[in-house]
Amino acid sequence: MSQLSEEIASRSAGYLDDLKAFLSFPSISAEGRALEEASDFLMGKLRSLGFNVSKARVDGAPPLVIADLKGRSDYTLVFYNHYDVQPVDPISEWRTDPFSPTVSEGRLFARGVADDKGDLMARVHAVETLLARGEGPPISVKFVVEGEEEEGSPHLKDYVEKYGSLMKGDVCLWEGFETSTDGRPQVFLGCKGLLYVELKLSTASADLHSMYGPIAVNPAWRLVWLMAKMKDESEKVLIPGFYDDVVPPTEEELEMLARNSYDVDALRRSLGVRSFLRAGPDLELLKDLYFQPTCNIAGFSSGYSGPGSKTIVPREATVKIDFRLVPSQDPAKVLARLKEHMLSLGYGDVQVKVFGEEAPAKVSPEAPEVRRLVEAAKESYGSEVNIWPTIPATGPMAIFVNELGLPSLMPPSVPYPGSSYHAPNEHIMLSQYWKSVEFFSRAILKLAPP
Amino acid sequence: MSQLSEEIASRSAGYLDDLKAFLSFPSISAEGRALEEASDFLMGKLRSLGFNVSKARVDGAPPLVIADLKGRSDYTLVFYNHYDVQPVDPISEWRTDPFSPTVSEGRLFARGVADDKGDLMARVHAVETLLARGEGPPISVKFVVEGEEEEGSPHLKDYVEKYGSLMKGDVCLWEGFETSTDGRPQVFLGCKGLLYVELKLSTASADLHSMYGPIAVNPAWRLVWLMAKMKDESEKVLIPGFYDDVVPPTEEELEMLARNSYDVDALRRSLGVRSFLRAGPDLELLKDLYFQPTCNIAGFSSGYSGPGSKTIVPREATVKIDFRLVPSQDPAKVLARLKEHMLSLGYGDVQVKVFGEEAPAKVSPEAPEVRRLVEAAKESYGSEVNIWPTIPATGPMAIFVNELGLPSLMPPSVPYPGSSYHAPNEHIMLSQYWKSVEFFSRAILKLAPP
Repeated sequence: MSQLSEEIASRSAGYLDDLKAFLSFPSISAEGRALEEASDFLMGKLRSLGFNVSKARVDGAPPLVIADLKGRSDYTLVFYNHYDVQPVDPISEWRTDPFSPTVSEGRLFARGVADDKGDLMARVHAVETLLARGEGPPISVKFVVEGEEEEGSPHLKDYVEKYGSLMKGDVCLWEGFETSTDGRPQVFLGCKGLLYVELKLSTASADLHSMYGPIAVNPAWRLVWLMAKMKDESEKVLIPGFYDDVVPPTEEELEMLARNSYDVDALRRSLGVRSFLRAGPDLELLKDLYFQPTCNIAGFSSGYSGPGSKTIVPREATVKIDFRLVPSQDPAKVLARLKEHMLSLGYGDVQVKVFGEEAPAKVSPEAPEVRRLVEAAKESYGSEVNIWPTIPATGPMAIFVNELGLPSLMPPSVPYPGSSYHAPNEHIMLSQYWKSVEFFSRAILKLAPP
Repeated sequence: MSQLSEEIASRSAGYLDDLKAFLSFPSISAEGRALEEASDFLMGKLRSLGFNVSKARVDGAPPLVIADLKGRSDYTLVFYNHYDVQPVDPISEWRTDPFSPTVSEGRLFARGVADDKGDLMARVHAVETLLARGEGPPISVKFVVEGEEEEGSPHLKDYVEKYGSLMKGDVCLWEGFETSTDGRPQVFLGCKGLLYVELKLSTASADLHSMYGPIAVNPAWRLVWLMAKMKDESEKVLIPGFYDDVVPPTEEELEMLARNSYDVDALRRSLGVRSFLRAGPDLELLKDLYFQPTCNIAGFSSGYSGPGSKTIVPREATVKIDFRLVPSQDPAKVLARLKEHMLSLGYGDVQVKVFGEEAPAKVSPEAPEVRRLVEAAKESYGSEVNIWPTIPATGPMAIFVNELGLPSLMPPSVPYPGSSYHAPNEHIMLSQYWKSVEFFSRAILKLAPP
């Protein structure tokens, strides 16, 4: 047992109490609940460790906690996390109270323990562990913790504009993702961007009897024809210029994929699908997952959807589309091209509403922090580390990367693929929590430049 | 004032009492209410006029009333009607109790008065009027009145199989439609057929996070691509062989359309649409409405349809399609071709569920009954008569035409385009009721072969 892990083990009772206390706040951003209380608790904890703490404010948003602790060097590590959690519905499926943290068979059950309070508290406890050893962190550490990540971080940009000078640093460790299906720690070097639009076409003030089918404009048909010209059956997006800015993966990134351990069949089973789009080698599937931008129908609704039959020409039709974008696609540019495409096809009557625009973010695998983080993970977990070019999903990381010039990595984190984020009975394995505290302690030590 | 209309006027108080009494039964087939009571009332009324009345039964269906009255000739007129009515929802929008018939400003308000109790009782009163004149009908008259037309007549075929011999005759007057937008009486020579199918594709046991978009099969996209190969933007149905059996309109039928008075713009306004598919001359639009078969999306549902955004790959997608068929298309054949088309395109994984199969029905405009009916209408209404090749909608008429060999016409009837069938505040104009009694009396007199 390493010195670090001994230190952590000796302090584990107090650490668990902290974590449970933090988890007891029902800080659900969608419902505006207990956000002040949860952020106050976090600030109190950080202040007790010697952090200089401030509560930043912009209109209409829960507070942003900014805290910094001067280390022996000016090199500054910024931790990005969030203290808000998802709603608890369906509450009937929880076996324990979501805000009464409960340990059972080595697991800790509570809403938000996997996403993201466990990860956040493990980082706090990492600093506390280093302080307890009498030396403190060799580098400066900042926490930037928001309270509406589960709502899509609608004010993070405003916060960065107003308080950016307080958030600056040399590297950012973003909230983490999860271990691999076979238990390896994982590092992700960025995230995809997102453009979310809703297309809506209204053609009548009410549904019509379908006897008028031969003469009435049917909005569902028009959106079918339009969508069929958005992407073809080979999954190629047909919007002119859509792929123009796509940066193909480098040799190095492809090698990165090939080196990783990954169980595609376990993923398939966990998703509950019979097959994937591509039947070929797993590596090709991974290339699609990480490097392909998407044009995805998230919803299509028009007319009658109840049991049996109803003979109508629907009065309106709506399609919700999310585009996941890869470097260096720009959501605003994709939106403009989408609109041009629709116009050129004669669908200018279809309304376009934008619900999300986030740029992709990317960090070079050459950054020295990547190597240092991987070393810290290897030593802490005793395992090889998967390094992925990106998560296949989206977060507000580009705001940090582009506005603050802060390279951001998603480090190994507390949850595992069975942690039920956003779902009933969210939990972590406590053994993985102690590993995370150790890993973050080591990361702080290792990230110090020579 | 004609002798007939004098006779009707002198008896109008009693006729109105009959009609109100019949309307008071809440005979809603969807709710199984008061069906025995309403049919008993009808049978009592017909028996009092000297009809030989029987209550036919098949399993699981409300009774079918069959009544016949021998006339001076064996030539037999069959009246098809129904005694059931639609549900009353939304009840809050009714200004009067739907089953307390109320006269106001020359209108009679009650559920079912337009569809189809008013029409049915006008036919009964026509026979009563002729009997009152001491002569009785010159031809034999039958009533065939079902109690589940508003449910799609699911047992009419069973009734015809079991009791067909009792329903035979020389001509059938189907339940009527309505006057034209400018008040003309109208005759319809048939109805379109119907094939109603639901296409469903399930690809996962739950919705997936849309980060899996690059590798997961999206059922909404697959149905979009499939549907785009069902019909093109020029409204041409792409199912091979779909049009093979379509009989194009005859010169005579086209002249029929051209002769009719029809206000396309009034129709457009009443439907609440800005424009129709075709901008050209009204006659071309009418040709589409009456002679074109359709492939209509009545519903398309997949994934998220709530407010804002949700980033998922939907687990399933469903499309509901109704095909309106023209002579001599066969719903079973269209269904087989649809399935072949789907298979040949590689969509054999999409489930097909059939919710409706009804053949089109058609009567020759040359039938002598058409001319006689038009004469009766002209004399009664003092107006030219629109003759349409078909209604653009569907009814179970083909069962009568094909199984009983009974040519069926939809005669001028009681309702007008503002009668609010199936809707709150359903009503008729009483003046039109008296005209209908007169018209049906005259029709019985005129239909007698020379």
